[in-house]
Amino acid sequence: MSRYSAAIAVSRSGEGQYKTELDPGYLIGTAINGGYLMAVLQSAALAESSHEHAVSSSFHFLRPGTGGPADIAVETVKSGRTVSTMRAVLTQDGRPTVTGTFATATLESSAVPEYAPTAPELPAYADCAVFDPRAEESPASEFSRRVELRFSATSYHRLTSAGADPVPELYGYVRLPESEGAPEDTLAFLPMAVDSLPPVVMVFGTWRWAPTVELTWNLRAVPAPGPLTFRSRAEMVSDGWFDENVDLWDSAGTFVAQCRQLARVGR
Amino acid sequence: MSRYSAAIAVSRSGEGQYKTELDPGYLIGTAINGGYLMAVLQSAALAESSHEHAVSSSFHFLRPGTGGPADIAVETVKSGRTVSTMRAVLTQDGRPTVTGTFATATLESSAVPEYAPTAPELPAYADCAVFDPRAEESPASEFSRRVELRFSATSYHRLTSAGADPVPELYGYVRLPESEGAPEDTLAFLPMAVDSLPPVVMVFGTWRWAPTVELTWNLRAVPAPGPLTFRSRAEMVSDGWFDENVDLWDSAGTFVAQCRQLARVGR
Repeated sequence: MSRYSAAIAVSRSGEGQYKTELDPGYLIGTAINGGYLMAVLQSAALAESSHEHAVSSSFHFLRPGTGGPADIAVETVKSGRTVSTMRAVLTQDGRPTVTGTFATATLESSAVPEYAPTAPELPAYADCAVFDPRAEESPASEFSRRVELRFSATSYHRLTSAGADPVPELYGYVRLPESEGAPEDTLAFLPMAVDSLPPVVMVFGTWRWAPTVELTWNLRAVPAPGPLTFRSRAEMVSDGWFDENVDLWDSAGTFVAQCRQLARVGR
Repeated sequence: MSRYSAAIAVSRSGEGQYKTELDPGYLIGTAINGGYLMAVLQSAALAESSHEHAVSSSFHFLRPGTGGPADIAVETVKSGRTVSTMRAVLTQDGRPTVTGTFATATLESSAVPEYAPTAPELPAYADCAVFDPRAEESPASEFSRRVELRFSATSYHRLTSAGADPVPELYGYVRLPESEGAPEDTLAFLPMAVDSLPPVVMVFGTWRWAPTVELTWNLRAVPAPGPLTFRSRAEMVSDGWFDENVDLWDSAGTFVAQCRQLARVGR
């Protein structure tokens, strides 16, 4: 079992009840990464479903999570032949941290899309730049070593020019480090991948904490192993709220995931 | 009270319990419009919240709804100073039809966006075309008289060319008929507006039933009264699934709502 698979594993402790030990390696400062929590919730929801994939997953974040023990309760809201709907709640110390509602189904891995967005053209992985402002904020944090992020030259410039070129659109690659994941982990990594980038509003100035309130992502195809290409965009920043839209393509150029979150602009 | 307000009204029947009578005027064929169900669920969720607005709302559709009595159970998942999270389930004959999870907060109606998408430039309302394939499918259906839809000339062509110009992007206007709604209804109309258009995949051929599995929409600003400008787009159609992304601007050109749904392509 890879380190990533071990980190998102859950064990059944009763009827619809699961336990896990959240790995503090996914902490960013004092709060655990939301994508990691989503991946753990997905493990529990899929363990209870007769379908293989979480095709649409909606999360509401209630309070910051931390490392250590957590309980997950899973309820089958509706069991269906094509789609089953599951609800999962992760609690720590008896208080709910995040709730997820999942539409589960089984996608055909050989499906050929009738219509799909073309993958962005990016330089090769090795020619994209490493950048993670969170590594500077919390030098002790392991997080920036748990997820590998690379940015195109334009995106790197947008992130580092402190608001001089404020276009909220970033391109690059995201993957599990080779030492952390196995090729078959790509599917289980998607919930983390859609919520592992620095907040796109960083292009408007310096990095600030940006707590997610709601996030929904759709699985559109079963990904091939390898790095994922991302595009992250904001449509609106207003009244202390912003949206972040992350789209992912696999190493074969197939559109595999679309995600939107609504978050607060930190102070 | 306008006819629209009466149609989405709920009455409290107990602790977190509401009742309503679903208006069969919102039936499309034998199933009630999902947007109407979302508007009703929102009425109940906001009645229980100390905040004024549902800023992010995620719905999972379990089975088709119909006209007549319905019960709504609302649970406060977390009560907060800035954001409260509510869950609401609508049942008919004791079976859940749709679940909604709401992040509620209070938006500042005079907020000036720091960054926002510009409204599409469209011809005047009166110069856009009426088109509703559902009116032909079910001539007895009142639905196409409960919501007024107008399409730009290009969009009208895409919808009526039966797949000859298959660009899944449509523009136009949506509003409550003047006889149905009052100016102050615009905010409560938004959940209906984001789910009242003909399925955008219609541009690939003739109209088919397209059941929504999951839909999340975000309220980004309090709308001014008047017609809403819409843009509806699909990013991917594959393996029997498609996404429909509906964005709305108010009559003053402010971006007010963003919505994405994952739906099945009907047979």
